[in-house]
Amino acid sequence: MRMVDIIEKKREGGRLSQEEIEFFVQGVTKGTIPDYQTSALLMAICFRGMDKAETLALTLSMAASGDRIDLSEIPGIKVDKHSTGGVGDKTTLILGPIVAACGVPVAKMSGRGLGHTGGTIDKLESIPGFRTEVEREEFIKIVQNIGLAVVGQSGNLVPADKKLYALRDVTATVRSIPLIAASIMSKKLAAGADAIVLDVKVGSGAFMKTLDEARELARAMVDIGNGAGRKTVAVITDMDRPLGKAVGNALEVREAIEVLTGKGPEDITEVCITLAAKMLELAGKGDFNTCVALAKGVVQDRIALEKLKLMIAAQSGLADVVEDPGLLPSAAHTKPYLAQEDGYLKAVISDRLGVASMLLGAGRATKESAIDPAAGIVLMKKPGDKVSKGEPIMVLHANNQSLFEASVSELDRAVIISKEPPEASPLIIDIIE
Amino acid sequence: MRMVDIIEKKREGGRLSQEEIEFFVQGVTKGTIPDYQTSALLMAICFRGMDKAETLALTLSMAASGDRIDLSEIPGIKVDKHSTGGVGDKTTLILGPIVAACGVPVAKMSGRGLGHTGGTIDKLESIPGFRTEVEREEFIKIVQNIGLAVVGQSGNLVPADKKLYALRDVTATVRSIPLIAASIMSKKLAAGADAIVLDVKVGSGAFMKTLDEARELARAMVDIGNGAGRKTVAVITDMDRPLGKAVGNALEVREAIEVLTGKGPEDITEVCITLAAKMLELAGKGDFNTCVALAKGVVQDRIALEKLKLMIAAQSGLADVVEDPGLLPSAAHTKPYLAQEDGYLKAVISDRLGVASMLLGAGRATKESAIDPAAGIVLMKKPGDKVSKGEPIMVLHANNQSLFEASVSELDRAVIISKEPPEASPLIIDIIE
Repeated sequence: MRMVDIIEKKREGGRLSQEEIEFFVQGVTKGTIPDYQTSALLMAICFRGMDKAETLALTLSMAASGDRIDLSEIPGIKVDKHSTGGVGDKTTLILGPIVAACGVPVAKMSGRGLGHTGGTIDKLESIPGFRTEVEREEFIKIVQNIGLAVVGQSGNLVPADKKLYALRDVTATVRSIPLIAASIMSKKLAAGADAIVLDVKVGSGAFMKTLDEARELARAMVDIGNGAGRKTVAVITDMDRPLGKAVGNALEVREAIEVLTGKGPEDITEVCITLAAKMLELAGKGDFNTCVALAKGVVQDRIALEKLKLMIAAQSGLADVVEDPGLLPSAAHTKPYLAQEDGYLKAVISDRLGVASMLLGAGRATKESAIDPAAGIVLMKKPGDKVSKGEPIMVLHANNQSLFEASVSELDRAVIISKEPPEASPLIIDIIE
Repeated sequence: MRMVDIIEKKREGGRLSQEEIEFFVQGVTKGTIPDYQTSALLMAICFRGMDKAETLALTLSMAASGDRIDLSEIPGIKVDKHSTGGVGDKTTLILGPIVAACGVPVAKMSGRGLGHTGGTIDKLESIPGFRTEVEREEFIKIVQNIGLAVVGQSGNLVPADKKLYALRDVTATVRSIPLIAASIMSKKLAAGADAIVLDVKVGSGAFMKTLDEARELARAMVDIGNGAGRKTVAVITDMDRPLGKAVGNALEVREAIEVLTGKGPEDITEVCITLAAKMLELAGKGDFNTCVALAKGVVQDRIALEKLKLMIAAQSGLADVVEDPGLLPSAAHTKPYLAQEDGYLKAVISDRLGVASMLLGAGRATKESAIDPAAGIVLMKKPGDKVSKGEPIMVLHANNQSLFEASVSELDRAVIISKEPPEASPLIIDIIE
């Protein structure tokens, strides 16, 4: 088999066989296929796409390229969740405790932030003492004991994806539905869960900018999951607005605790209850409405909050933060961001909000940057709210006052105020299963 | 400027600026752009194409990437000719002497064969003693003295094309009209002629398989030439049939001599007179019909043949071959290829004829293979001729009888005999200027 023939076939719009795809993925993993052939094929895939069978074969080959996590020692149906990411997305911190509190084990491996904002691991590390580097045996043991652990990725999981992603990033071949779907799902499959709930975000703050794209990605990933024998569901959620009110690592942990006490913002609560219910449904806990009631019940009874406390303790963190969020790192300086006119807050462009938060220290400007766990932004007003000129819309948190200026000028371009109230749009847009 | 942004722009269907194209070509030449980014851009160009201005900018940047030949010491308008190649194409051996005999200097750099069959340089080297490696000063001096020299490429001409072509070959990005046009024309521009006649071949034996493709390539190349200030014309010729009767190096030299004595096959004679007349027209020798008459005249009067003889002498070859082609290398063994049924010779598939000739030793199976100058095939019948079962259609020439078998079995798939005579089709299909 010759790589140049495989590239030619795809360039001409042909369908790659399972053998051809395996040859490609194994060659990439072993380093026997030169990068210039790989990037040519990736670009051809950007234009020609891949059908359902090709995408599944690509994902399975990638998932098989390195270590696979074996969760069989944990009894029950293990359900994983993946979010395509967005500004202020702290759903994992909330969902994990809710689902575990309902008796479904959650053994979650999570990543650091790739874009402007921190990832789940960055957020958890803002809790004093919290360990995210946990060996496999201990990881399994914590889940066996308390039903919940969230740790950083370890081992050689899906090396083919690491190589392909690094190459896609510098060859403008990131934006391809089958390549995105295979990248995400190969990691989910290798991570060992029996069922998967996907949170596909759409809008200005999300990777998928249009609903059509989001639906296509959701369909591709659900097809892969089901094709690989894992029950998979995707929930498409709106990311034209920030989720919740907090952006920034410790600030988001604090908001997650609020949601688990039943006092969090409505939007993030609604998304988390829906995602948790879909996870519980896949785990066999009943129909969707039953599962919604279950999820709401463990929040109301504070069982989910207790679960979070247990996980923090098991991972060596300061569990008291759950009762006293003041124990989380807090910034030395705050500064309100004021409305510049009367009207309605029409939109806060999530991308720009993420950059503004990063500029305060909450995210990484480059891969090497350190994150300030205390930095970030808290919204005082949400899209749709009435605002008066001079009224605070947000509060900025930073440990260095000199950071405010750049952040504020980014926010000037993030905030849109209109005379008329904006039309309300649903937060949960669709469920693909 | 970042290469990834240039790739992204082209992937999205954008138009690259002159600065972006220069950045790319210079980066490829200097080696500062990694191959994986180059191949990704090449694949994006395969899908998105390039407009007239982009293709011209690419060609000019490539032509400027290395040495340029300065022909200004040769008085008069220098006209170059390029053929997109085909099986049995010996036009350069015939055109050069005709045009030079009409008083227009021909300073031609030629290549070796890339495909199955030998190139012009391989053909000339079948003449005993003939030198194709000639230093620049001597090359210019020969043209000043006798008006004609054909030498191998020397110097660092268009290094960007060498790098791009090597990469295109292994990444399935060869077939792209703007890339093909820029590759050919960058070499023509660097080779220094004032005007250029292009012979674009179309058909089963040619690189361009359809007339639409051939027209598109011809138009792209003519636009580049004129855009670069060189008068350029393209003649589209039929390559569904082999040109002339001989395939193989010494056999083709012999046929070229026959054409220059006025006794060559009709098809190759017609193509050569047309191409020569277009070259003379560009050199200001009068209108097309006048130039046709001029070209026919120098053949009839044997002035063109005398020019060939002078060139062979000037390049240290055995000039007597012109009067006595028996002095050319000849093969130890010949074998007739017989018609397997009664009917009309409908077609000889040129690609397969080229392979059959290569299998006898006339071409290179790999880049390192040596060529046997005496080997090849001579057609006894041309498409359209009536044939009887058992009658010889061709004669195979080889120095090793063991080579006949594989060649014959390739010819079995090259020869198509039909009950009805095939429709005649024109040899000169179109002229693009």
